[in-house]
Amino acid sequence: MLYSKLFGKTKKNSKEYDSTNATLLIKGGFIDQVMAGTYTYLTLGTKVLAKIEQIIREEMDKIGNEVFMPSITPASLWQQTGRFETVDVLMKTVPANKFALAKSDAEYVLNPTHEEVVTPLAKKFITSYKDFPFALYQIQTKFRNEPRVKSGLLRGREFRMKDLYSFHTSEEDMKKYYEKVKEAYVKTFSRLGIGKDTVVALASGGSFTDDFSHEFQTLCDTGEDTLFYDKSSSVYYNREVAPSLAPEVKYHDEKMLPRQDVVGEGIIGVEELANFLKIPVEKTTKTLIFETDDGRVIAAAVRGGYDVNEDKLRKVARCKAVKLASEKTVKTVTKAEVGYAGILDLPKEVEVYLDESVANRTNFETGANKTHYHSINVNFGRDIPLPKQFFDIKISKRGDLNPKTKKEYQVFAASEVGNIFPLYTKFSEAFDYKYIDREGKEKPIYMGCYGIGSSRIMGIIVEKYHDERGIVWPKAVAPFQVHLVGLDLKDESIKTKAHEVYQALLKKNVDVIFDDRVETTAGEKFSDADLIGIPTRLVVSKRTADKIEFKKRTEKKTELLSLDDIIGRL
Amino acid sequence: MLYSKLFGKTKKNSKEYDSTNATLLIKGGFIDQVMAGTYTYLTLGTKVLAKIEQIIREEMDKIGNEVFMPSITPASLWQQTGRFETVDVLMKTVPANKFALAKSDAEYVLNPTHEEVVTPLAKKFITSYKDFPFALYQIQTKFRNEPRVKSGLLRGREFRMKDLYSFHTSEEDMKKYYEKVKEAYVKTFSRLGIGKDTVVALASGGSFTDDFSHEFQTLCDTGEDTLFYDKSSSVYYNREVAPSLAPEVKYHDEKMLPRQDVVGEGIIGVEELANFLKIPVEKTTKTLIFETDDGRVIAAAVRGGYDVNEDKLRKVARCKAVKLASEKTVKTVTKAEVGYAGILDLPKEVEVYLDESVANRTNFETGANKTHYHSINVNFGRDIPLPKQFFDIKISKRGDLNPKTKKEYQVFAASEVGNIFPLYTKFSEAFDYKYIDREGKEKPIYMGCYGIGSSRIMGIIVEKYHDERGIVWPKAVAPFQVHLVGLDLKDESIKTKAHEVYQALLKKNVDVIFDDRVETTAGEKFSDADLIGIPTRLVVSKRTADKIEFKKRTEKKTELLSLDDIIGRL
Repeated sequence: MLYSKLFGKTKKNSKEYDSTNATLLIKGGFIDQVMAGTYTYLTLGTKVLAKIEQIIREEMDKIGNEVFMPSITPASLWQQTGRFETVDVLMKTVPANKFALAKSDAEYVLNPTHEEVVTPLAKKFITSYKDFPFALYQIQTKFRNEPRVKSGLLRGREFRMKDLYSFHTSEEDMKKYYEKVKEAYVKTFSRLGIGKDTVVALASGGSFTDDFSHEFQTLCDTGEDTLFYDKSSSVYYNREVAPSLAPEVKYHDEKMLPRQDVVGEGIIGVEELANFLKIPVEKTTKTLIFETDDGRVIAAAVRGGYDVNEDKLRKVARCKAVKLASEKTVKTVTKAEVGYAGILDLPKEVEVYLDESVANRTNFETGANKTHYHSINVNFGRDIPLPKQFFDIKISKRGDLNPKTKKEYQVFAASEVGNIFPLYTKFSEAFDYKYIDREGKEKPIYMGCYGIGSSRIMGIIVEKYHDERGIVWPKAVAPFQVHLVGLDLKDESIKTKAHEVYQALLKKNVDVIFDDRVETTAGEKFSDADLIGIPTRLVVSKRTADKIEFKKRTEKKTELLSLDDIIGRL
Repeated sequence: MLYSKLFGKTKKNSKEYDSTNATLLIKGGFIDQVMAGTYTYLTLGTKVLAKIEQIIREEMDKIGNEVFMPSITPASLWQQTGRFETVDVLMKTVPANKFALAKSDAEYVLNPTHEEVVTPLAKKFITSYKDFPFALYQIQTKFRNEPRVKSGLLRGREFRMKDLYSFHTSEEDMKKYYEKVKEAYVKTFSRLGIGKDTVVALASGGSFTDDFSHEFQTLCDTGEDTLFYDKSSSVYYNREVAPSLAPEVKYHDEKMLPRQDVVGEGIIGVEELANFLKIPVEKTTKTLIFETDDGRVIAAAVRGGYDVNEDKLRKVARCKAVKLASEKTVKTVTKAEVGYAGILDLPKEVEVYLDESVANRTNFETGANKTHYHSINVNFGRDIPLPKQFFDIKISKRGDLNPKTKKEYQVFAASEVGNIFPLYTKFSEAFDYKYIDREGKEKPIYMGCYGIGSSRIMGIIVEKYHDERGIVWPKAVAPFQVHLVGLDLKDESIKTKAHEVYQALLKKNVDVIFDDRVETTAGEKFSDADLIGIPTRLVVSKRTADKIEFKKRTEKKTELLSLDDIIGRL
């Protein structure tokens, strides 16, 4: 392709967009922002996206059947799973004006995911045990109702996605297939050029299971996720599920001091409180009151500096959901205004869940359950009975230990590139989808779902592979393999030679873009080539005489080679 | 691919769906209906669609840059062209529930076409005369608010489309490029296997021009369009624009009879009226009263048996739009109830446009402009002044002549597969998109748009290429090139041989599907193969011994060949 004919040239301005990937992709002429979180893929971007999706398709074809489901579907399907009223990213379509309304007043869901479509589809076609397991996937545009998003291609109102769904006659079979998908994903990410930095992390399995789901995370300094890596077991955990043991407190009080209730009106945050009380933050305790979905009121406490992990709390409290208690409930339970809750003297019917970080401290602080008061020099055994059990109900943070190995985690920033999620019977039950076993009996169907965001991956690759001059595309997803730069093109003989080299490369099926602009300076052309980030740069100019300059985007070294040598290398 | 592992088997029931293409594609396991006008493409269907789109892409890459614009865009873009309030197929998105509303209350247009996106996009990047002309295209899912549609893949609420937009510095350049697109389309349809039956027809250019647009129409008995072909000029016209000369009336009255006003209360349709009056339908006259967009009231009359073509009328009346007059206006103008309008004694301020089919009749009928009365034996020159001019303002029908050649049209049913449409400055003006000429002056930009419905083409190919046993895919778009049928597979040696043949074909990169089902009868397998419609069928069975049976879907003849011979033929 001729660069002069390409739609979407590089931008020279120094503007920074909402993220590194947006800045480099917009400046490089890959994408154009239509509104926050919504982009047009220009020609270069369309090529990269197509390459990413083709690699995904080839790997998915080995483990599933490609299909293509509609984006708009009847709301009734979403009502059947109860998600029509609850999913906060769900959009629906309505007629845009009175003429459209007169034509048809129907409303449809604009799918952000396709469990509600694929389950009834599978049910129509496959019910005999003989035809299990099977898996369906598609590569498609998805829609999410998002507020103003600011992370380029990493998160959008409209994005590209591969979603795969599998169907099984048993939990074991689901888990077996699950491992197959893991392998296929490893292969996919490796082919996409991000394999060596992509790890599998354990993540939350959702409210209907205690199992983990799995995320494929690409380690990346600008990643929005935090991974906790336990070296001795070689396991990565997403922060949301990382089991954690707080490091021992650093202070050491030999003796118990007398408990005191101190007035501290309006002093609520632990930092502020520690300052006010002139004690280390570690001595403070954060107590929160929750209501459970089964109608209980519970208290949860973590050491100052930590936060309560609601997912962990939900599990230890053996319920499906917890939510922060209403102001009214807090007042009733603590007999105080909000902000002074503590673990002292709570009513008997309130179960108290103490994080292990709260234990092993002398003379600690806790809310006094008395308006404006904080209790200090509190001690288990003396002021509060030592509980039978401490739990892990905190959000892990840097410095925490793995509870099993007692070793400190390594902590990494990362970006999710894929996820695999056991659905068990959640959707098959909602659609009353059962299989008929050998004896003719109806049995439950187990499902899994497995996503890869193809447009997101384009963004992550840029976040990960760039330098101060621009993008550095992995070979497999680069928009072209060769960037041929013609210089001194006002000189007819050089111009002829450059076009000849271009034609020769095309003839050899080399995927090449030729910067044939006549008026542009060498400096601009080189900086454009670096910004666009194609793996190999070739230069034809007066200086290169009968040779061609060869340079890799990842290296500084240039070489003068013959056309044949170059074709040999490519 | 193994047929046993394919998702979406053939259906045995005898149900007929809403159209031939839906019936064959659903029964063949290509698509599944989610709701009226909305389908899931199963694996076979996904393959066909991908092949169609890849051919389109390859041809479009020769004349434009591929991009990929978002499906949802700000309503403000559509407001800028005034189409937000007027396009009756326009849908918008809104949050689906209260949680979604809390997250973001933004509404977006779900694009049925992309002029409103591509024009501002082009404006951002290209304004210098040096960079014109250029063209952008995309292949994408489009959305239309349609009432219950019943034509399979031919029309849908959600469908696939290639849309190309071109930008020019002059009308001449637009027209030059327009011819280039025509050539590219001819090549595309030829590669898709429908070239020999696809013609270019003249169609309406829309309300902003007297020019024609062009439709690519595939001749097809079940087509929803009607083409009028003038053999001597080799021109196809869409019925909506075909110029027409009515054949001479068959009756012959030598003498003028006295005009009479006959009571015929409630007799309104021309057939009923002709019966009642015992005259041929040709003697009747249909008169309609219209209001124009510039505030005039006009009358239009055609011979009984014809209808008024509003697009033709609009042009001869030199206005932008006509609409049937309100009941009140009709009553005022004709001084009668609705149903008795005629061309007699209309008020002077009402311009009367008479179709040429009305001329050259003696003793004809017309509404009497008097409630319940029809006038018969009316004659020009005696009862009504002979008008200075007759027009062509009728919808053409079979039997009509081309006015220039005076030859009768051939009439064909056809389905539109593509269209090319000159947009002139309609959208560039709406977005104030101008180019800067050599002298630094701002000048208007001319645009064209060019569509091909890729999913629609899949349906049309099936409408066109099928027989009583099933689909007959053109080679280029068939889901596989070879359908290998294994029979007698309970016999281990045959099973082994069949699988060996399958592997050998795969090794030679033959695009093959292998019906490896063990329990299915030969009859079922053959009828499935015919229904699915892959170009070449191979059979391995006891009967074929060390040979393989070779049969084309289009032929009855079978041959026994060696594997090498077969690979040679493929």
